[in-house]
Amino acid sequence: MKIARFSVGDDIRFGIVDDEDLVVLRGDPMFAGYETTGERVPLSSAKLLAPVIPRSKVICVGLNYPAHKEELAQPAPTDNPLIFLKPNTAIIGPGDTIQIPPVEGRVVHEGELAVVIGAVAKRVRAEDAESVIFGYTIANDISARDQMFADGQWARAKGYDTFCPIGPWIETELDPSDLEIQTYVAGEPRRHGNTSEMIYDVAEIIEFASDVWTLLPGDIILMGTPAGLGGFVDGQTVDIDIQGIGRLSNPAKNRV
Amino acid sequence: MKIARFSVGDDIRFGIVDDEDLVVLRGDPMFAGYETTGERVPLSSAKLLAPVIPRSKVICVGLNYPAHKEELAQPAPTDNPLIFLKPNTAIIGPGDTIQIPPVEGRVVHEGELAVVIGAVAKRVRAEDAESVIFGYTIANDISARDQMFADGQWARAKGYDTFCPIGPWIETELDPSDLEIQTYVAGEPRRHGNTSEMIYDVAEIIEFASDVWTLLPGDIILMGTPAGLGGFVDGQTVDIDIQGIGRLSNPAKNRV
Repeated sequence: MKIARFSVGDDIRFGIVDDEDLVVLRGDPMFAGYETTGERVPLSSAKLLAPVIPRSKVICVGLNYPAHKEELAQPAPTDNPLIFLKPNTAIIGPGDTIQIPPVEGRVVHEGELAVVIGAVAKRVRAEDAESVIFGYTIANDISARDQMFADGQWARAKGYDTFCPIGPWIETELDPSDLEIQTYVAGEPRRHGNTSEMIYDVAEIIEFASDVWTLLPGDIILMGTPAGLGGFVDGQTVDIDIQGIGRLSNPAKNRV
Repeated sequence: MKIARFSVGDDIRFGIVDDEDLVVLRGDPMFAGYETTGERVPLSSAKLLAPVIPRSKVICVGLNYPAHKEELAQPAPTDNPLIFLKPNTAIIGPGDTIQIPPVEGRVVHEGELAVVIGAVAKRVRAEDAESVIFGYTIANDISARDQMFADGQWARAKGYDTFCPIGPWIETELDPSDLEIQTYVAGEPRRHGNTSEMIYDVAEIIEFASDVWTLLPGDIILMGTPAGLGGFVDGQTVDIDIQGIGRLSNPAKNRV
């Protein structure tokens, strides 16, 4: 199922995507289950929102595709995944505007599969990882490249407001092991990859991350980006397609 | 005023510390003001909790004391503060146990002044910074040293569950510019410094961080640690005194 969070007027609701409609749910299905209100809202009249607002962590996996690891030429841990954090204030939804801050150097897109955690998860073994997954969405791990290297730590360069678009919805039934990821800037194809290339898979990352941090419902894990480093500028739209989920599309503007 | 968050039985409450008592407040004063219920609870019968649970960000300022910058011998940005994030799942309260995970190398204490943000803050100028500060508390930015260097990114090494003790309460009236900070391990004095040595002061950091991230009420900013790198082990207690606030004390145990 595809679960969307959306607004109609001032109301924020959750719904199941059913063809051209949203079947409205009584509450957030992560906590309240899938009881429907009986209403249907046309997708075309709903404003889709970020499908989840993490209350605790936006976890990112760095350098998780071999080709991207090479192009970055960045020292990386050899025996374990590299994990880091973005703040939840960076989250925006589908169609929302990426605000490019006045930074030196390029601001780049990183289209990534994102895992949405649905249960409290502490020291979960890889073989049990599925039990704590609510579903999958698309994320754009936007980064100010020069600041990453100038700071050493990536929290600033990857944490600006609007630097984590997610959506358009959460797919609750998906095998994440072999999915095409394709990014477009202004309609032109850019980064491309397949989740089968990931060095650490979803279950391994959940085992690793939940040994460090207690994962909470609503936390998301961005699984890393394939190769094809590329920027975008004011006026362009960044689209990310992931097979089985859909398309996340966000226009970019210079911050005023 | 010193504002504590505490439990008596199953109830979580906020109170003003008044000598040996807590004057009970109707709600969280950050949002609900300072109306009292008329009750008083002896401090000795209350279990003090982390005075705030950040809903968004635990921001840390790295290398903000010259002597610590030297001892770390770490490349650092030259023209701006270094900021990074810990997850809110690392927060524990006064008296709570620091759980030392089975990591290579030392786990070290970093006693720091922590600023508690009390308002939505976006691109706040240094001269207006005071208007978004709710108060100050003490924080221990615990770090697994070898992992910091192995990973490059510090999110894991500084983000383990229990790696951010804060408390014992929030002091709402404090001049942060000249405060003694003294850390003890098992009663022996270790790191010592004074906030007057900070390279970037509280107002400058709020201007800098709020240009990158929207700060939310309940976010905290750890202002960095003075020199005197030192570890602690199973069975020891780490105490941090900051002048004008009090003492944050946490025993440490190996994680089982």
